[in-house]
Amino acid sequence: MQPGILYGISVGTGDPELITLKGLRLLQQAPVVAFPAGVDKKPGIAQQIVSGWLKPEQQTLSLHFPYVRDERLLLSAWQEAARQVWQYLQQGQDVAFACEGDVSFFSTFTYLAQTLQQLYSEAIVETVPGVCSPMAAASALKIPLTIRDRSLVILPAIYSLKELKTVLDWADVVVLLKVSSVYRQVWQVLRERNLLQSSWIIERASFPDQVIYSNLNHYPQLKLSYFSLLLIQVIDNQQSMINADF
Amino acid sequence: MQPGILYGISVGTGDPELITLKGLRLLQQAPVVAFPAGVDKKPGIAQQIVSGWLKPEQQTLSLHFPYVRDERLLLSAWQEAARQVWQYLQQGQDVAFACEGDVSFFSTFTYLAQTLQQLYSEAIVETVPGVCSPMAAASALKIPLTIRDRSLVILPAIYSLKELKTVLDWADVVVLLKVSSVYRQVWQVLRERNLLQSSWIIERASFPDQVIYSNLNHYPQLKLSYFSLLLIQVIDNQQSMINADF
Repeated sequence: MQPGILYGISVGTGDPELITLKGLRLLQQAPVVAFPAGVDKKPGIAQQIVSGWLKPEQQTLSLHFPYVRDERLLLSAWQEAARQVWQYLQQGQDVAFACEGDVSFFSTFTYLAQTLQQLYSEAIVETVPGVCSPMAAASALKIPLTIRDRSLVILPAIYSLKELKTVLDWADVVVLLKVSSVYRQVWQVLRERNLLQSSWIIERASFPDQVIYSNLNHYPQLKLSYFSLLLIQVIDNQQSMINADF
Repeated sequence: MQPGILYGISVGTGDPELITLKGLRLLQQAPVVAFPAGVDKKPGIAQQIVSGWLKPEQQTLSLHFPYVRDERLLLSAWQEAARQVWQYLQQGQDVAFACEGDVSFFSTFTYLAQTLQQLYSEAIVETVPGVCSPMAAASALKIPLTIRDRSLVILPAIYSLKELKTVLDWADVVVLLKVSSVYRQVWQVLRERNLLQSSWIIERASFPDQVIYSNLNHYPQLKLSYFSLLLIQVIDNQQSMINADF
């Protein structure tokens, strides 16, 4: 029997309407829909996003991906998830895995897909791209993320302020993902460089409870949720859009 | 009368199914659909992508954005486009502007929207995020773009090989957009750093005529089209996914 296909489907950043037509089509065609399990028995974020799109006859599969750094625990969780998915695939059933944001952009799906293919070399994986958080944030802020010859740097989290400073020395636009744990230190760096006025924080971009903080001069401290993104325009937009000469 | 709204709608990178549900809804609701004019009287790329979604009663508006660097010509074209759009908005009609890729990511829409708001301060602009080319490319290549603590740098074009070398010194993943004109020089840099095997070229990601070049050792020279993207994984994926210690 031909095995089923594991589809990694980008479901966007929060608003259920930010899934693509292709993503929705493949999501609704699959007999099994998987997603990362939530914490404290609450539905996970991807599950919340797609819940309105699922049909009663679709089976759901909640996969456990622990939020830990221990490589051994992670590998064991990925292997268990891959085994659960393979149970369906080997019976010829497709599995659609719902990924918050874009499936190629810091996604849990990557570990599931790579582990699956290591354990079962005949497994077939397809992915559907989608809306990632920097794009959702820029639309929410009503500013362009990048224009013309601007360079864009995306850092998943700041482990080194030295690296941030290096990046600010040459990059035009910088996005820091999951900035909550280092916000105070980053704020100091932005103040030193006079960048607080051209920086924004977006929490839960495109969700109904989305929050935006502009002009960070007023916010030396913020209690931010996990999905908080900091956008820094190192060059002023208006200034560089039109050359001052004319 | 309340003016209409200018919607900047991300239509994805080529495959018409890569538009979001929200983008399609707003595109089809607008009485007027605008897009950048094509060259040589051929339809433009965004127009080609959305043509199948438009209804007979929708009016189309082709706006001229010249491919030049002359700031004066550009400004004049943006102002003319803004004036054309405003003719509809001031009559209370919404205008949906179709943008290839994501509307905040190196998009012509930015210039139109900013010029419109400079000329007509009462103009209202909304944007819908979408699939940008690096995400479409990663899905096409079936590799993750970024995982874990990887940094991602996106350069719109290389004007300085020195900058590329600086970036390769510290970044984990590098994407070069519109690489066609500098491919030979970039190839040399990648060879010096032994990165040709972990680099890919994608032309026209998600279009039916999409082309992928893997293992660039074989391609010191390539005649590439304008929408060619180079993806460089400076760290090997498999190596870093699972720690070699266990």
